[in-house]
Amino acid sequence: VRSEFDFIDQIRSRYALGRIGDDCAVLPKDAETDMLVTADLLVEDIDFRLDWTTPEFLGHRSLAVSLSDVAAMGAAPTHALLSLGVPEALWKTDFLNRFYGGWHELARKHAVELVGGDISRSPDKLFIDSIVFGEVARGKAVLRSGANAGDLIFVTGFLGGAAAGLELLRTGTVLGPEISVTGRHLLLKQLQPIPQVQTGKLLTEYNLATSLIDLSDGLSSDLSHVAAASGVGATINADVVPIDPAIFDISSLHTQELDLALNGGEDYELLLTVAPHNAHIALDLGFHHIGEITDSAGKLELLHDGISESFFPKGFRHF
Amino acid sequence: VRSEFDFIDQIRSRYALGRIGDDCAVLPKDAETDMLVTADLLVEDIDFRLDWTTPEFLGHRSLAVSLSDVAAMGAAPTHALLSLGVPEALWKTDFLNRFYGGWHELARKHAVELVGGDISRSPDKLFIDSIVFGEVARGKAVLRSGANAGDLIFVTGFLGGAAAGLELLRTGTVLGPEISVTGRHLLLKQLQPIPQVQTGKLLTEYNLATSLIDLSDGLSSDLSHVAAASGVGATINADVVPIDPAIFDISSLHTQELDLALNGGEDYELLLTVAPHNAHIALDLGFHHIGEITDSAGKLELLHDGISESFFPKGFRHF
Repeated sequence: VRSEFDFIDQIRSRYALGRIGDDCAVLPKDAETDMLVTADLLVEDIDFRLDWTTPEFLGHRSLAVSLSDVAAMGAAPTHALLSLGVPEALWKTDFLNRFYGGWHELARKHAVELVGGDISRSPDKLFIDSIVFGEVARGKAVLRSGANAGDLIFVTGFLGGAAAGLELLRTGTVLGPEISVTGRHLLLKQLQPIPQVQTGKLLTEYNLATSLIDLSDGLSSDLSHVAAASGVGATINADVVPIDPAIFDISSLHTQELDLALNGGEDYELLLTVAPHNAHIALDLGFHHIGEITDSAGKLELLHDGISESFFPKGFRHF
Repeated sequence: VRSEFDFIDQIRSRYALGRIGDDCAVLPKDAETDMLVTADLLVEDIDFRLDWTTPEFLGHRSLAVSLSDVAAMGAAPTHALLSLGVPEALWKTDFLNRFYGGWHELARKHAVELVGGDISRSPDKLFIDSIVFGEVARGKAVLRSGANAGDLIFVTGFLGGAAAGLELLRTGTVLGPEISVTGRHLLLKQLQPIPQVQTGKLLTEYNLATSLIDLSDGLSSDLSHVAAASGVGATINADVVPIDPAIFDISSLHTQELDLALNGGEDYELLLTVAPHNAHIALDLGFHHIGEITDSAGKLELLHDGISESFFPKGFRHF
């Protein structure tokens, strides 16, 4: 069965849709500015479970995932739409008030204005379509397609925490008063992710990244998108991938740490490629150097304990 | 239980969301141009049934409802996003290819470019979020709030056809080879609505409408939105409301014709108000004069066979 990525490729090519395929679409706004737009669907029992989260966290997360897409173009978010399909039972509770509360708390931090959307009844599941607009100086949006052989690969923070949090939720951990500090940290990485909005804007000011993507599907999967869009390959040094230290405190996750960091998604850190002469700036900014871009188009390699092996995208797919 | 309209009002006021409440949000684009954006959710078994339609019709309709919102601001559509939650069983068929085919056939007619969206798996129901952008000369978007007492009320075409089509579908009529010409017409009004894109643009060129809305929820409901936004009332002359003539051919719908035209939704004609000295232009354009704006804020009246009665919104509500 084709994946959703294959299907989108097919539609893009059949209808010659040149603006599809990055974290956001780029549209000309005025002489100085480009506008960006992104849409993210969140579906109950596929992307979230109501008994694992709170309405406020879910509101926050719905906006955060789209802010992350705007950050992944080096742009600043400006406006948003929110479409909700709501089951009748949920409509009768204070769920939506609390959901909008969580949404707006994050929106206020980044001066994002809600300008529209739609509300419909849904037969049984809650679903959310989050649309965010952003702005960036004309021609300055950082695409997935700009990586060059020899560029260094950086990530902006620790990886695997959100996937570890999901694993904890799956095995019955709840966000209650008894939870450990590290357990709480991992659950919040999953339930209330922090988009890298300031870092995204900074990268455009510094003109630092040759390519940029957010880590939503997982490092292996998102890196493969950059490689495909740029027509390059990549080598990742597993020994220096920054695994979220909290994961090592959870005994049930032992031996899974690297897999969570490489293939777990939803950390919403950024992955960027940087020309070698700018590497010191990326290091100064605290980014983690994890590998290099190669000229082996489409080929990903993983170095681990001195051994090199092929590295395949294993992140989340809907189909 | 509050309606979705009440809830949206409450959110708008709590968070001071000044751009919410018309058919589209208006955002400044450049010195000459405003940008418009609208979102419309379509949910399986709430807004459509898969066994009543075809994938192509559903693709067409998903775009048409949003094009209608752009037309209802007097603007021209430019770009679109499409977010789909798809049950696995449907993913494995040719449904999506045919859906995108129907979508693009309508998009091509109006030079609308698909620039993004999202695809997610859905547990059981198909749902569609259609987002369309448009453009209009700066400050020229026609709002719901501009109607003045004394303005004449016009609609751009026949009403009730789409609701009659829905009634036929509900009672088992199918779009097969045996159907009558009028039955087919009514089903297509429901399944494949034609948005008034050219008329919307024309209204801005003529500077004709003081207020404008599309007839999606039903005349009574949509007129009440204009009255509320403009702080006025309205009188409708039921004897001259243009009822879709095809309805009179369907014996099972006898005696319901006026109710379908007044309260049935989804015709996607436009309702506009016009200053009295411009009424002859609206008549020249073939629009139907159905009533007047009054200074009785929030009060709708219906004249029928010489008798005046109060007129309440009875269109479709999700909650």
